[in-house]
Amino acid sequence: MIITEAQGLRELGTQIFVALGAPKAKAEFVAETLVEANLCGHDSHGVFYFPVYGERIKLGHIHPKENPKIVKETPSSAYLNGRWGFGQIAAKKMIETAVEKARTSMVAAVGGFNINHIGRLGYYTTWATEQDMVGMMFVNVGNPLVSPFHGTGRTFGTNPASISTPTATGENFLMDYATSLAAAGKLSVARAKHAKVPSHWIRDKNDNPTDDPNAFYDGGYLVGFGEHKGYGVQMASELLGAALTGSRTSMDDSQNPPSPNGVFCIAINPEAFVGLGAFKEKSSEIIKIVKSRKPEKGETVLVPGDPERISKRQRLRDGIPLPEDTWEQISKISLELGLDPKIALKKG
Amino acid sequence: MIITEAQGLRELGTQIFVALGAPKAKAEFVAETLVEANLCGHDSHGVFYFPVYGERIKLGHIHPKENPKIVKETPSSAYLNGRWGFGQIAAKKMIETAVEKARTSMVAAVGGFNINHIGRLGYYTTWATEQDMVGMMFVNVGNPLVSPFHGTGRTFGTNPASISTPTATGENFLMDYATSLAAAGKLSVARAKHAKVPSHWIRDKNDNPTDDPNAFYDGGYLVGFGEHKGYGVQMASELLGAALTGSRTSMDDSQNPPSPNGVFCIAINPEAFVGLGAFKEKSSEIIKIVKSRKPEKGETVLVPGDPERISKRQRLRDGIPLPEDTWEQISKISLELGLDPKIALKKG
Repeated sequence: MIITEAQGLRELGTQIFVALGAPKAKAEFVAETLVEANLCGHDSHGVFYFPVYGERIKLGHIHPKENPKIVKETPSSAYLNGRWGFGQIAAKKMIETAVEKARTSMVAAVGGFNINHIGRLGYYTTWATEQDMVGMMFVNVGNPLVSPFHGTGRTFGTNPASISTPTATGENFLMDYATSLAAAGKLSVARAKHAKVPSHWIRDKNDNPTDDPNAFYDGGYLVGFGEHKGYGVQMASELLGAALTGSRTSMDDSQNPPSPNGVFCIAINPEAFVGLGAFKEKSSEIIKIVKSRKPEKGETVLVPGDPERISKRQRLRDGIPLPEDTWEQISKISLELGLDPKIALKKG
Repeated sequence: MIITEAQGLRELGTQIFVALGAPKAKAEFVAETLVEANLCGHDSHGVFYFPVYGERIKLGHIHPKENPKIVKETPSSAYLNGRWGFGQIAAKKMIETAVEKARTSMVAAVGGFNINHIGRLGYYTTWATEQDMVGMMFVNVGNPLVSPFHGTGRTFGTNPASISTPTATGENFLMDYATSLAAAGKLSVARAKHAKVPSHWIRDKNDNPTDDPNAFYDGGYLVGFGEHKGYGVQMASELLGAALTGSRTSMDDSQNPPSPNGVFCIAINPEAFVGLGAFKEKSSEIIKIVKSRKPEKGETVLVPGDPERISKRQRLRDGIPLPEDTWEQISKISLELGLDPKIALKKG
C-alpha cells in the first residue's frame, strides 16, 4: 500500500486533467469528487479513475472542455444533454438544477443523456441535503456486468441508486450503492491487491460461483443484491436511468464510449410537507433511536452514511492507502504528462 | 383451503364495510383493493383484512365515512391529512393528486399523515402507470416489527416501497415490497396454515433464528432484506414516510391506532424527458432482452410485476384459496352483521 493524502491527490488529479485539456475549474471538480470517494472508503469510485479518465480523454470518449446543455425544461423538470463532457460536470449540473427548481416548485426531476461515468452518486445526493433538500438518483451503466434475478450472464450495468436526506445534526442519511452485490470497482481493487472475493459476489463464465476476481474479467459476471427485492431497484435504475432519459441501455454492449451513465435525479423540498425544521428534527430522533438498539454480537448499529463519515475522519487523519497497481497507473500517466506524482504522497 | 372467487369477495367485503357504516363507494373501493391483493398473490395484504378492518371500525380507529383533506399545496405538491378514514381512500386520493399535478407540472409529490393501513402499495403505483406516469411510493408502518441491519429487536415497521413504470405492452414494471425479508402478513398466513417459515426470516425474543411463526408473535421480530443495501430502502421509507410527512414513526409503539401508515408518493410524467412513446417502447425492449436471458437451473427469468400477473390470471380462473382460519374470521364477522359469507365461495 502507498499512503497518499487528499489535498495532494486533488492537486495531482487537477494537474492531470488540465494537462489533458480540461479547464482548471472542471479538472478541480472532477478530481475533488474522485478523492472524496476514497475519503469515504469507496476506493472503487476513487482516484483509481485518474488514469482511466485520462485514457478516455486521449481516446476521445470524454471531451474535457464540453459543457452540458439543458434541451427541454419546465419549472419542475429539466432534460439535459451531457454532450460527452466529464460525467461529473453533467451530474452536478443536474442536481443543482433539480435543487434550484425545487426551491420554488417544491419537487423537481432532471433526466440526462450523453453522459460519461459520473462516479459516486452519494456525492450529488449528499450535496442536495447540504442545500436542505431530499436527493434521489437512479443511474444505469451502459456496460453489462450483472445477471438478472434467476437469470445468468452479463445483462445489467451495476446500476446504482441513491437516496439522501438532511438531519438536524448535519449528518445526512445516505443510501448509495450499486445494485450488484459488489460494485465492479471492488473487483478491480481486489484484482489490483491480488485478493480473493466472497464467492457469492460473482459467477464464472460457466455460471459457477467463484472467489477469484480474475474469473469475472474472463467472461464471468456479478450477481445482484437482495434477490427479487434488490432486482426491483436494479431494474428501476435501468428503466429510469436509461429508458426515461433516452440513454444507452445496459445491455447494449457497444463499447464506444465505455460505461456511459443514464442519469435521473429528483430533489424534494421538505417545506412542501411537514416543514424543514420538523423533518430534520424527527429524522435525527429516528436515527438516535435506531443507533441505540442492542447490536448483534460483535457488530455496531450504524445508519447509512455513517461508514462514509467514519472512513473520512480516519483517512483525513491517516492518509488514503492505495494499492501499488493503482499507484503505478497514476504515476505512469503523471510522468507521461511531465507531472510529479509524489505531490500526492503523505508527508511525514 | 376454502376456494372463493373475486367478484363474490368484493361483494361480501362491500357489504361488511357498508354494514359497519361506510358509504357504498368507499366500501366498494376498499374491498376491491383487498381482493386485488389476493388476485395478485399477496394474501398477506388481502381479504384477511376484512375482519381486521371491521374490528378497527368498531374500535373507532378507522372512521369509515371520513374523507381525506389536502391542507397545503402547490402546482407540484400536496400535503394531505387522511383524517383516519380508510387508508385506501387517502392513498388513492394521494396518487390521483400526484398524477393530476404531474400532467401539467411534469413531476409532483404528495405526503400524507393520519392515515390508516393502505394495503398493497402496488395497487396505487400500478394505477399511476395506467395513467402513463411513473409512480413511486414510500411508506412507514407505525408498528415496530423489524430489526435494523446489525441490530436486534423490533425497531422499524415493515416499511414498504414501490416503483412502477408503464411499458408499450401494458404490462407494467412493478417493484413493490416490504423491506423486511418477509411481509408480516406472510407470518399471519403461515400461522393460520400452521406452517413453518424459512428460519432466516425471523428471530425469537432471545435473538435466535427460528422457523416457528409463533415465536414472532411471542416477542420475536423480522429481519430486513438485503443486508446494508436493503437497510437503505427500509430507512428511506421511514424518513420519507414518517419524518417528512409528520406521521407516527415506526418505533413509536403506542398501539392506538394500530399500524398507521405515513405515506409519501411521487408521480413523474415521461413527457418531460424522452417522451412517453419512446419511454414505453424502450422499456418493453429492455424487458424483452432481460426475459430472453438463460435462466438459472430450474428457474424462470421474470421481471417485477410478472408474478402478480401470473397469479391474477390463475386465480381469476381457479378461484382464490383462503386458509380455514381466515375464512372463519370472515364468516364470523359476516354472520354477526347478518350477512351471508357464502356469496364469496366459488361456484360449480
